[in-house]
Amino acid sequence: MSKSERIILGIDPGTTIMGFGLIRVVDKKMEFMQLNELQLQKYSDHYVKLKYIFERTVQLIDTYHPDEIAIEAPFFGKNVQSMLKLGRAQGVAMAAGLSREVPITEYSPKKIKMAITGNGNASKEQVAKMLQSILGIKELPKNLDSTDGLAAAVCHFYNAGKISTGKSYSSWGAFIKDNQDRIG
Amino acid sequence: MSKSERIILGIDPGTTIMGFGLIRVVDKKMEFMQLNELQLQKYSDHYVKLKYIFERTVQLIDTYHPDEIAIEAPFFGKNVQSMLKLGRAQGVAMAAGLSREVPITEYSPKKIKMAITGNGNASKEQVAKMLQSILGIKELPKNLDSTDGLAAAVCHFYNAGKISTGKSYSSWGAFIKDNQDRIG
Repeated sequence: MSKSERIILGIDPGTTIMGFGLIRVVDKKMEFMQLNELQLQKYSDHYVKLKYIFERTVQLIDTYHPDEIAIEAPFFGKNVQSMLKLGRAQGVAMAAGLSREVPITEYSPKKIKMAITGNGNASKEQVAKMLQSILGIKELPKNLDSTDGLAAAVCHFYNAGKISTGKSYSSWGAFIKDNQDRIG
Repeated sequence: MSKSERIILGIDPGTTIMGFGLIRVVDKKMEFMQLNELQLQKYSDHYVKLKYIFERTVQLIDTYHPDEIAIEAPFFGKNVQSMLKLGRAQGVAMAAGLSREVPITEYSPKKIKMAITGNGNASKEQVAKMLQSILGIKELPKNLDSTDGLAAAVCHFYNAGKISTGKSYSSWGAFIKDNQDRIG
C-alpha cells in the first residue's frame, strides 16, 4: 500500500501578526514543516495589511499545496470595531483559500488549546511547549504569537475524522450553537 | 484632446445580498452601465456565501476592468457577531480588488446618502429615486438593496478629487477619527 500524505496549513490571521505553520501528515503521523509569522505592525495602512495577508496566504498555498487549511478564529471579541477588523483579516485569508479551492475549517482558540494541551485555558507558553514536544521542534521562535497558526494545523489533525473538512457547519446559526465556548 | 474615461465599480457586500453597480465617467460626466445584485440568502453555508462574493467581484473586475472600486462599509453595527460576519464579507470583496490591484475606497452609508441626496439620513427610496434621476435609469429593480452598490460608485465619483483614491486613511486611528459619523 502506498503512503498517504497530506499537508495542513494553519493560520492565525490578525491585523498585527499573522502566524502560520505547516505540517505534513504521513500515514497518520505528523511531521513538522514550518513555523513562521508575517509582521504587520510596521504597516499603518489597513489595506496594505490586508493585501499582505492575502498575498502571503496565496503564496503559501502555491508553494506548499496544502490539502486543507485550518484557521484560528475567535468568535467574540472586545468590541464591534475590533471584530470588524478581525473579520476583514479572516476574510482575506479565507479568500486566498477559496480562490485556490482549498477546504477551510475554523477553530476557536479554546478548542485549539484543548486539542493540544487538554486544557482549554492553557497559556501560550504551555501550548508552545507541547507543540515543541509533539513535533520535535528544535527551537521555538521568540515571539510565541507565531505558534498559533501551527497550533491550528495540529488541532485540525486531531479533529480530522471527527468532523468533516471544509465547512463544518450548515449555517451560521448551527455554527453558533456548536460554539458556545466562543461566546462571552 | 482625447476623452478621459474611467470605470467605477461600487459594491455593498453583505451576507444576504451583495449589491453592485458600474458607472463610466467620460469627460467628468457619469454614464450608467449596470446595476445588479447577488442573492446570498439561498446559501446556508457561510463559506459558500464568501466564495460567491469573492468570485463575483473577481468576475466583475475581469469583465469590466474598473479603474476604482468603492465599497459601502458600515463601521458600527448591532453586535460583535454581526460585525465579524460583515467584516468577512467585506474582506473577501476587498481581497478580490487587492488581487487585481484595483484601488479601493470605502464610504459609510451616511456619507453615501449625503453625497447623493444631500441628506445623510435619506431613505433607501429617496436614494434610489435620485440615482434614477441622475443617471437616467429607465426602471429601478424591485429590491432597492441592490442600489446600494451603485450608490457607492456615484458617491465615489462625487468625492474623487476631494480625497485620494486607494486607501484614504493613513491608519485605523485616523480612519476612526475621520469617521465619527459611523459611530453609534
